[in-house]
Amino acid sequence: MAKLKGNAVVGQSGGPTVVINQSLVGIVKAAKQREEIGKIYGARNGVRGMLEEQFVELQDLPDRQLDAVAGTPSAALGSTRDKPDEEYCSKIFEVFRKNDIHYFFYIGGNDSASTAHILNGLSEKYSYDLRAIHVPKTIDNDLPVTDHCPGYPSAARFVAMAIMGDNLDNKSLPGVKIDIIMGRHTGWLAAASMLARQDSDDGPHLIYVPEVPVEMTQFVEDVDRVVQTHGRCLVAVSEGITDNKGELWAKKAQAVMEQDAHGNVTLSGTGVLADFLVSELRKSKSHIKRMRGDTFGYLQRCFPGVISAVDAQEAYLVGQEAVRYATDWAMDGSVAIRRLSEGAGEYKMETFLTPLASVAAKTKTMPAEYCDTPGVIKDAFLDYLKPLVGDLPVCGRL
Amino acid sequence: MAKLKGNAVVGQSGGPTVVINQSLVGIVKAAKQREEIGKIYGARNGVRGMLEEQFVELQDLPDRQLDAVAGTPSAALGSTRDKPDEEYCSKIFEVFRKNDIHYFFYIGGNDSASTAHILNGLSEKYSYDLRAIHVPKTIDNDLPVTDHCPGYPSAARFVAMAIMGDNLDNKSLPGVKIDIIMGRHTGWLAAASMLARQDSDDGPHLIYVPEVPVEMTQFVEDVDRVVQTHGRCLVAVSEGITDNKGELWAKKAQAVMEQDAHGNVTLSGTGVLADFLVSELRKSKSHIKRMRGDTFGYLQRCFPGVISAVDAQEAYLVGQEAVRYATDWAMDGSVAIRRLSEGAGEYKMETFLTPLASVAAKTKTMPAEYCDTPGVIKDAFLDYLKPLVGDLPVCGRL
Repeated sequence: MAKLKGNAVVGQSGGPTVVINQSLVGIVKAAKQREEIGKIYGARNGVRGMLEEQFVELQDLPDRQLDAVAGTPSAALGSTRDKPDEEYCSKIFEVFRKNDIHYFFYIGGNDSASTAHILNGLSEKYSYDLRAIHVPKTIDNDLPVTDHCPGYPSAARFVAMAIMGDNLDNKSLPGVKIDIIMGRHTGWLAAASMLARQDSDDGPHLIYVPEVPVEMTQFVEDVDRVVQTHGRCLVAVSEGITDNKGELWAKKAQAVMEQDAHGNVTLSGTGVLADFLVSELRKSKSHIKRMRGDTFGYLQRCFPGVISAVDAQEAYLVGQEAVRYATDWAMDGSVAIRRLSEGAGEYKMETFLTPLASVAAKTKTMPAEYCDTPGVIKDAFLDYLKPLVGDLPVCGRL
Repeated sequence: MAKLKGNAVVGQSGGPTVVINQSLVGIVKAAKQREEIGKIYGARNGVRGMLEEQFVELQDLPDRQLDAVAGTPSAALGSTRDKPDEEYCSKIFEVFRKNDIHYFFYIGGNDSASTAHILNGLSEKYSYDLRAIHVPKTIDNDLPVTDHCPGYPSAARFVAMAIMGDNLDNKSLPGVKIDIIMGRHTGWLAAASMLARQDSDDGPHLIYVPEVPVEMTQFVEDVDRVVQTHGRCLVAVSEGITDNKGELWAKKAQAVMEQDAHGNVTLSGTGVLADFLVSELRKSKSHIKRMRGDTFGYLQRCFPGVISAVDAQEAYLVGQEAVRYATDWAMDGSVAIRRLSEGAGEYKMETFLTPLASVAAKTKTMPAEYCDTPGVIKDAFLDYLKPLVGDLPVCGRL
């Protein structure tokens, strides 16, 4: 089969991570080695930049600059929340034709896989040779098929360290502390807080995730019970927790607490859920004197320097492999990770390519194997998580 | 003069820091070397543990354990919010007599200096030989006399790195982002966010501190102006900002946003101020589509691993020196830091002892030399701050 010659475009989409630029640089460095790939266009702000021809040429950048970009958090090309439909993608196609673009690499979550899927469909319809590869990225870890998502291990590391510090803080000035953790409608990131436990007294004492609904009465009684046992209670809460009817607690919180609620539920970038949970506790458990709520917010996905080494390597690798699948294999799809080692042994992985349709617009929640009781994450989850996050500081104690 | 023989007690008070245990271990290691000091009692939860004779003996702990404690965030002995009066201190004195305690070391902020001052006065009244030393600690940097407070440089480093990451995040998905930063009624910590600027486009674009009041109309117009110039706006806001009448914006926010406000203004552990500021912006600047607010919260004072090397060394040193002042000098007072080098030259410092009354219950705000206009911190502040915080990551860009 003749090699498909042409230019490539790469874009970044959705909420950034601290390693999304590793994937970008993995793609650029691998694509530079391919004679069939000419120019490598970086699209500013993802599909938006493709639509508006906002490109920066990446093929001639020095390795020193690329390496600096790879080690920098957030999307160096800029990101977007645009979720293109077929019409939007048709217009992108015109830009592809005009610029002789035949390789499309899109780093993002399941919306980005959908975009790649639509473009892939259009390329067949138009009989236009296009390799469309989705490169996985999300701190939420909610993409199907892949064992885990690049970006998640570093965010998990941030959450584990944050909760480790907050546990010591809460121990020194005892009371109830509620920490809201990202993750959209899955609990993968909040569950990572359990890595903070090093001592039998350590929090988080309770971890609530969207996969296991919780009623307010149970939440309040759970916290009170822990306070009676430990004299304090550190609670990790997913931003996406719901009641038994599946209604978001964040939505109820915004209805109660915000003056200007327009019906749009903002999961991140607001402290409302933490404040609401504290206020519910105060209503019936006023004997607990010290109650505080923090929302970890955007720091979970952008804090420089808190990066899992495994994550950085894998994020680079999935970018590199995307180019290999598009060129050597001449395939379309979403790059995924398969774990080769089991349990506590040496961690090994490999990549594989999964059909775009298997990832597009789909969400993977935590299985019952890891959680089936409100407030509790099972130890089995630690076997999955530990190799990804790396060693954590060990706390000295008196 | 004969050496004062007896046991020592050490306690930790107020909001912990990531280096407060360095001071504890500095005291313990130095006191172990002194033949005039017998037992070293660690008081659980500060003065509360002294009152209730909740002691842990520290003189025989192995260096390995002490070193591990020194590197661990938060108060290893536990902390307290108790602010003892003379009656409370009289009861502590009974415990001192009973346990032959003649050396008192208290690590904390200006309330802790007050406690040391009261105990010092009582020792004269009772003609009881007691050396009372206050060892400075606060992320707020608001103690008078000393050039800066141990704990502050590490928290400043956390804030600088957090804003650096959030600036990249905000650049990739443009909009208004408001970040609330600790510091009580001073702006030292929020002002440290300016270290995040590496490029002319970088945020924080505005920094509001309590030392320079701001009206809501000005805040809103400032933000809008930056959005018109940069297409986005990252704002660092001290939790203690006020209007022109000196009323806390946090207080107004709680009155408007919270259902269960009891008149107590909580500066930390709530996301209300960020949410209120976002809601005020939405009212008049609804053309700005993306608006988010985060409150950095307790992570600023407890996040493991984000520690300024200068801060860790100095926190240990002030503990060590406290023992030297109490023994060799037979003096009471508060340990302070004097900066020996000026400007951008090599950073050097020494400690000195200042009277307890000069620190007790007093607050040092930022001088007009560093800030006199709402939203703006002057470059002169960087000369003060940079040597304390250490090198920061350099961001790669496309």
